Amino acid sequence: MHDNDGTRTPVTVIGLGLMGRAIAATALRDGHPTTVWNRTAEKATELVARGARLAETAGDAVAASPLVIVCVTDYDAVREILEPLGGSMDGRVLVNLTSGTSEVARETAGWVARQGGVCLDGAIMASPPAIGTADAAILYSGPRPIFDQYEATLGSVGAAIHLGEDHGLSSLHEVAVLGLMWGILNGFVQGAAVLGAAGVKAAAFAPLAIRGIETVTGWLPGYARQIDDGAYPGDDSTIDIHLAAMAHVVHESEALGVNVELSRLTKTLADRAVADGHGGSSYAAMIEQFRKVTART
Amino acid sequence: MHDNDGTRTPVTVIGLGLMGRAIAATALRDGHPTTVWNRTAEKATELVARGARLAETAGDAVAASPLVIVCVTDYDAVREILEPLGGSMDGRVLVNLTSGTSEVARETAGWVARQGGVCLDGAIMASPPAIGTADAAILYSGPRPIFDQYEATLGSVGAAIHLGEDHGLSSLHEVAVLGLMWGILNGFVQGAAVLGAAGVKAAAFAPLAIRGIETVTGWLPGYARQIDDGAYPGDDSTIDIHLAAMAHVVHESEALGVNVELSRLTKTLADRAVADGHGGSSYAAMIEQFRKVTART
Repeated sequence: MHDNDGTRTPVTVIGLGLMGRAIAATALRDGHPTTVWNRTAEKATELVARGARLAETAGDAVAASPLVIVCVTDYDAVREILEPLGGSMDGRVLVNLTSGTSEVARETAGWVARQGGVCLDGAIMASPPAIGTADAAILYSGPRPIFDQYEATLGSVGAAIHLGEDHGLSSLHEVAVLGLMWGILNGFVQGAAVLGAAGVKAAAFAPLAIRGIETVTGWLPGYARQIDDGAYPGDDSTIDIHLAAMAHVVHESEALGVNVELSRLTKTLADRAVADGHGGSSYAAMIEQFRKVTART
Repeated sequence: MHDNDGTRTPVTVIGLGLMGRAIAATALRDGHPTTVWNRTAEKATELVARGARLAETAGDAVAASPLVIVCVTDYDAVREILEPLGGSMDGRVLVNLTSGTSEVARETAGWVARQGGVCLDGAIMASPPAIGTADAAILYSGPRPIFDQYEATLGSVGAAIHLGEDHGLSSLHEVAVLGLMWGILNGFVQGAAVLGAAGVKAAAFAPLAIRGIETVTGWLPGYARQIDDGAYPGDDSTIDIHLAAMAHVVHESEALGVNVELSRLTKTLADRAVADGHGGSSYAAMIEQFRKVTART
């Protein structure tokens, strides 16, 4: 991918875990002069064979490219690698794809700015094999002009989505999407456990599960509007109706002898919504339970 | 819809809650002679105005049509309504769309058979407004020839899917799909709560949520194969990697002051999988946790 000035931007990738290697491989594939660095150099072997330059130090890696992508275990690792470099961040754009809280993302962006660099914080919405394909999405937050300048290069890693200037936004969106991901995965494996207890194969469940997911996904834009409006008319279904079904699911799960903890928590949250007067509301009213820190006692 | 013999099958609908009324309205729309009955007759007013016949007693309702759809609160209500009728089930096909456990569905089917009738147990995978459209799916279990005979009529209520002869299958599939539904809904409202704490609107989250759902949905057929094989190679991602992200999500949720119960349970389940030696396995290995009755202590 060409950037705004029509050249292939040199790219540095720091951190060569599964994800970092996939990102560096994509940069190489797309013809970017690619420099890599990792605490343990062996992780770079295959990338070097494909044309990557292995920097001797993290400082050399940062110096090699205007765009420095960092994808390491956590923000502590980011700071351990970058702090010794100090002013060498001058003029660099640091794309931080490391996972962490929104607060630490903002702190790190502030620290990079004090070292003379600019930070884009990013969150990867993909597993490593999807990197470099249209199936990957990367959420970015930070200065819009910087994002625009490097959008083409970032776009080769995966669909590049800019969320806003606040460096905490990519991390917060990651948390939101991860929760949804585990909701689906746990729902699927729990369902497979229920059906498996009756001898039904997971492969037979998958098409129905996917159909169910598509149906429920269609409800989300309407529920989002209700959440933003703070009004939850139960025109389609009510939490009372959900609660009756939840009691039934808990009962069936107990009878089958499968795990019932997730179903019980789901029911507990709905019980609280009904106690708060939302029995006749749509499921969107459950937002009020998720906004609360502590369980009702 | 015409049935196998080319006529519009007379249909009886017992139970006129939101769902029963939607089903009866669809039968009327499609030209079926439609008889309805409900414990409180007022629920039938609008249907009668559209051409439905209101039976005076449940026995009259059963006698009026070869195909009797029952959609009431629970199986206790089914038995309370039908038991006094005894042998009048002779030759009737009872389509039981009432929610209940697989065991009670099997018991009820057995009881109907002893009264001379035949039972199809069904589970509705739709909210009432979707009834009569392609968005609704109804899962049926019971004798295949009976399903085939009435498939056209059943298909006007929603896409009719036959799961197998065991009358418990529709109920079990309902439990499996419901858990997935709450997984998505809770994931979405939890995500909206997280983002709302930073001033992001739910409507802005919805498109990203939907994109995330589509990505995760694409993983399910592969995970289903792993579950059926009992082998969970962590080629794409591992439970160790998920666990690190879960710790991050719990931490961020605590920092934001939103509910953390669901995230903590998700992490607890993954902690147990790692303790069981599945840190390097794919998320499909979580099935083993959902198969277990009790928490590790």
